[in-house]
Amino acid sequence: MRGWLFSGTNKPLELIEKEDPKAIPGQIVIEVKAAGLCHSDVAALQDPGWMPLFPNGPVIMGHEFAGVVIEVGEGVENFKVGDRVGANPMNRETKVTAGYTYDGGYAEKVRVPADQCVRIPDGVSFEEGAASTDAGITSYRAVFTIGQAKEGTKLGIIGVGGLGQFALQMALIKGCEVVATDVSPEARKLAEELGAHKAYDSIADMQEAQCDVIVDFAGFGTTTAEAVEAVKPQGTVVIVGMGILQSNINTYSMITKEVKLLGSNGGSVEDLQGVYDLFATGKMNPQLVTIPFEEIDKGLEKLKNHEVKGRLVAVFE
Amino acid sequence: MRGWLFSGTNKPLELIEKEDPKAIPGQIVIEVKAAGLCHSDVAALQDPGWMPLFPNGPVIMGHEFAGVVIEVGEGVENFKVGDRVGANPMNRETKVTAGYTYDGGYAEKVRVPADQCVRIPDGVSFEEGAASTDAGITSYRAVFTIGQAKEGTKLGIIGVGGLGQFALQMALIKGCEVVATDVSPEARKLAEELGAHKAYDSIADMQEAQCDVIVDFAGFGTTTAEAVEAVKPQGTVVIVGMGILQSNINTYSMITKEVKLLGSNGGSVEDLQGVYDLFATGKMNPQLVTIPFEEIDKGLEKLKNHEVKGRLVAVFE
Repeated sequence: MRGWLFSGTNKPLELIEKEDPKAIPGQIVIEVKAAGLCHSDVAALQDPGWMPLFPNGPVIMGHEFAGVVIEVGEGVENFKVGDRVGANPMNRETKVTAGYTYDGGYAEKVRVPADQCVRIPDGVSFEEGAASTDAGITSYRAVFTIGQAKEGTKLGIIGVGGLGQFALQMALIKGCEVVATDVSPEARKLAEELGAHKAYDSIADMQEAQCDVIVDFAGFGTTTAEAVEAVKPQGTVVIVGMGILQSNINTYSMITKEVKLLGSNGGSVEDLQGVYDLFATGKMNPQLVTIPFEEIDKGLEKLKNHEVKGRLVAVFE
Repeated sequence: MRGWLFSGTNKPLELIEKEDPKAIPGQIVIEVKAAGLCHSDVAALQDPGWMPLFPNGPVIMGHEFAGVVIEVGEGVENFKVGDRVGANPMNRETKVTAGYTYDGGYAEKVRVPADQCVRIPDGVSFEEGAASTDAGITSYRAVFTIGQAKEGTKLGIIGVGGLGQFALQMALIKGCEVVATDVSPEARKLAEELGAHKAYDSIADMQEAQCDVIVDFAGFGTTTAEAVEAVKPQGTVVIVGMGILQSNINTYSMITKEVKLLGSNGGSVEDLQGVYDLFATGKMNPQLVTIPFEEIDKGLEKLKNHEVKGRLVAVFE
């Protein structure tokens, strides 16, 4: 099979030939149909700080993929050959992750633990199935699993980027009332087009909405601190964005309002199921841009140069 | 009746004669048997910053009291004359508070809303019943209602002062495994005498205990930040102390460990019931020092000068 090999910081990704993966107990082999391109791959290609995440040397990149099961290992009972599946790339306990600790999805085939996979519903494309596995589950977990938003919840979204847009669409489908804030006028316009009740140009202004839950997809320190001020008494602020890794919080507000400030990290296989259930409604409409598998290296270059609107997904023809 | 009148910052408390309070609909009149002396009263006597909490002019102080019901207002069905009761001094919705917004418990009689009162169990003294209504409910709420500690929970306590000692005793009765940390060697010794599994001299060292829940009774900014680092993954940190009103939190730890950081403010009538239930076990043993009602002014002076070990409670003979 062919796959895009990552050999280290500042080395170009290389399209190589490699032996096909074989199923082993508890794992399945997937013929990859779509693989999302992620900013973290761009970062790993430029920043040596990412190298500890690649402890096993050169590896095929790609942690956001979907495809068709072509082989099942011993003991796997919930999948059969021919199933359309997506995979949560990371084992939440061990942190072992496809595309980092072992060969990932920028390849024609990939082997993953069956218990990290979820069947893609009918009517949902492989591209959507792939894009769901990273931006999808991270935003789903922050809003619903950690933030506990449900029908009728007044939800505030800070940052209408990739994750924020996913969150906005999912929350509207679930019957939340959503407001958003973003420093970019275009992002605010997009938020209102997607159905946000109102888009504010500052978090302080969002206080008037008295949100039950605010999810900070930006994570720029001040954004989290301002969210604590803006949320309603006994409200919840979820931090998921890592723009800056410190936030100076007003503990007087935390205490007197009894605010809950909750960290949310990635997503689980249950979160992936949740995203697919929302896609199955037919109401999700993420901005996806497809490129051929053979152009993954060029695609990452475009991502790096901020030339892409929406999520880039490589497809296999 | 007699009562201690607060007329403003830097004015001495004055023992005055005043007309007895009469029951009104929904409220009861209590003959006060014990009233706890609180550091916040000392602060209000010295610091003009507290004056906004006294919007109605001179008022009888005291927000920590217990006694016997001597009159019940129209519509009050859950109490009768002769009941031994304690009161949660603050209405959590309106913030209207005995001893601040209306006449409090440094008096022979006090009138309070019946729905803020709880019956004191047999075998629990009025002194204990009074002390429970402030330090008791604040620590109870932080540990159990907000922190959700229960049997088997590994609980870390930061600051073994009045609230921390209450928390430690209550948590042990409920079957938690408790560790503590305090900068004072005496406080650490006390914690171990009271039954703490271990007392650490730094929060960083407490990390080895991998607590499920850490309650920060100090609230010195760094204490909260260090608690976020020390708590186990997916653990809970509760902030209740207000030593400093800012904390610079590491959001990377918040996110990757999915920490829950929760503010806890005062207590509710349900929390007071919880404290009384624990006192009813006979296992609570708070350090109480009694003085006569007539010496409340001198008692507050002693508190101010840090001459008191344990909680000062004024009693009526």
